[in-house]
Amino acid sequence: MNIDMIRAAASRLKGHARRTPLLSSPFLDEIAGRTVLIKPECLQHTGSFKFRGGWSAVSALDDATRKRGIIAYSSGNHAQGVAMAAAAHGAPAVIVMPQNAPKLKIDNTRALGAEVVLYDRAGGESREEVGGKIADERGLTLIRPYDEPQVIAGQGTTGLEIAAQAAEIGVTSGDVLVCCGGGGLSSGVALALEAEAPDMRVRPAEPEGFDDVARSLASGTIQSNASQSGSLCDAIITPQPGDLTFPIMSRLCGPGLVVTEDQAMHAVALAFKRLKIVVEPGGAVALAAALFHGDKLSGDHVVAVCTGGNVDADVFTDALKRFDT
Amino acid sequence: MNIDMIRAAASRLKGHARRTPLLSSPFLDEIAGRTVLIKPECLQHTGSFKFRGGWSAVSALDDATRKRGIIAYSSGNHAQGVAMAAAAHGAPAVIVMPQNAPKLKIDNTRALGAEVVLYDRAGGESREEVGGKIADERGLTLIRPYDEPQVIAGQGTTGLEIAAQAAEIGVTSGDVLVCCGGGGLSSGVALALEAEAPDMRVRPAEPEGFDDVARSLASGTIQSNASQSGSLCDAIITPQPGDLTFPIMSRLCGPGLVVTEDQAMHAVALAFKRLKIVVEPGGAVALAAALFHGDKLSGDHVVAVCTGGNVDADVFTDALKRFDT
Repeated sequence: MNIDMIRAAASRLKGHARRTPLLSSPFLDEIAGRTVLIKPECLQHTGSFKFRGGWSAVSALDDATRKRGIIAYSSGNHAQGVAMAAAAHGAPAVIVMPQNAPKLKIDNTRALGAEVVLYDRAGGESREEVGGKIADERGLTLIRPYDEPQVIAGQGTTGLEIAAQAAEIGVTSGDVLVCCGGGGLSSGVALALEAEAPDMRVRPAEPEGFDDVARSLASGTIQSNASQSGSLCDAIITPQPGDLTFPIMSRLCGPGLVVTEDQAMHAVALAFKRLKIVVEPGGAVALAAALFHGDKLSGDHVVAVCTGGNVDADVFTDALKRFDT
Repeated sequence: MNIDMIRAAASRLKGHARRTPLLSSPFLDEIAGRTVLIKPECLQHTGSFKFRGGWSAVSALDDATRKRGIIAYSSGNHAQGVAMAAAAHGAPAVIVMPQNAPKLKIDNTRALGAEVVLYDRAGGESREEVGGKIADERGLTLIRPYDEPQVIAGQGTTGLEIAAQAAEIGVTSGDVLVCCGGGGLSSGVALALEAEAPDMRVRPAEPEGFDDVARSLASGTIQSNASQSGSLCDAIITPQPGDLTFPIMSRLCGPGLVVTEDQAMHAVALAFKRLKIVVEPGGAVALAAALFHGDKLSGDHVVAVCTGGNVDADVFTDALKRFDT
């Protein structure tokens, strides 16, 4: 992994991924006690930054490999990002999803052109076995959600944009808060900033109870979460940091930040009211850290990446009701 | 009014107004039966395109005039745009608002540093009379919401961006649907397109029962609305097209489009789900026309401007409940 791979990914994404703007609001600045610059990746194609990694990985394949097709395991944002990127390249895509995944997510992934293969998670079927068999039969290429160099490179293009957009308004230093699951986005952005804005530093943000990255960074070794479900921040819950992403984060990132689920929901409501963007709870933890954990930050500015917006109406409505402020 | 004034406004706005992106979703394209390109001015500063006109007008004043102060009358979005622009220029601002404007808009206008004066719209008071009187008393400069050359010039910068951004993806013709109140945005965008994308044409969009512009364009003379209140689309309800804006619209715009309030609310829900943006009902009528009135459009592409996002949580929640699709 290096900056050249990220720059090459940026070239492949040009004209395909959206260059999301940097947003801000004087009302949020007042809460945070400093200027908060928001990178709204919820406005990216398929509603999350995952489209960048999906496009990067699919576009990096040689024609023959791509023509045989790709496969991914995901019931969430990675599935949609890969499905849309594959369809745009004319590449067949198989997405392996649990039978009991929400019908809407299955329908959306199909509507984006992918073949959805369901497996019986509750009945003990392994998605690797189900998917591996299909991949072998058809010669499909697996695209992992974060421990995949071309996926990290694609996510890193977010960092190139942050460096350029912040510099345009005179900001060249400070913390860049990134909602963190397996670390694909955090490590990609960290590599981009190392090259383009060396005085800016990634701080991974996670929900309480699922702070594997914060604990891993603090201890210097990979730590796991006790649980992998039960959070409203489902989009960024992973077992542990990746084998590729952790060494990068360990070398380049500052200490992790941990927010409560209530703080994430409060940030969802404030993003509605002050930024006019739809953010899912897991995509709002970095903004929540910027707003409610300012004592752990330094400097006049902070950047927060809002990573995704694929939230059900009932969860969103609940956030607005609970935090009408 | 001419294109040079719009280009000059664009220079004054550079680095201050946001260049909002063009968004799209394959799911919306499927509903509309053509590609729908969305210009999300809800992401503009203060949550609506009105910031452009406000900044244009305030920045065009000479220093001495600006220092004496600004006055504006508005149901909300123009108020916030002018208030923020005035504050950034160090100019005092008085905003005349109807008593029954959404609380969020009144609160925001105050928080942005303006003095708010309320009047009784339902009871028949005229905001023009109230505003004019205060302007005379205090020697303030009145910035009208649409019948004001520098305001039209500022709103027109939206059209310069649409022409450039559409051309980047190969789109140089087709209808551009604009949510229309007094016609400041519609006429400004129409002038910009006349110069920069002459095969694109503005189609003003309005809610049923408040279709003064559509009827005025059809008859060739200025028509009024029977009522000035009672619509969820409050942001774009005005008595009639402006004396400056109507001749421009009459010369350059295609026939107006009229949508039901339900269609506007449905578009609000679809913008939440598919675009991850927060749009107010009045700001969604152009998108509603693109989605649900395709039979009145032609061509493979349509542009819809989502003009504002300053919606109260209860109205937004209601849209999501009623149109869970």
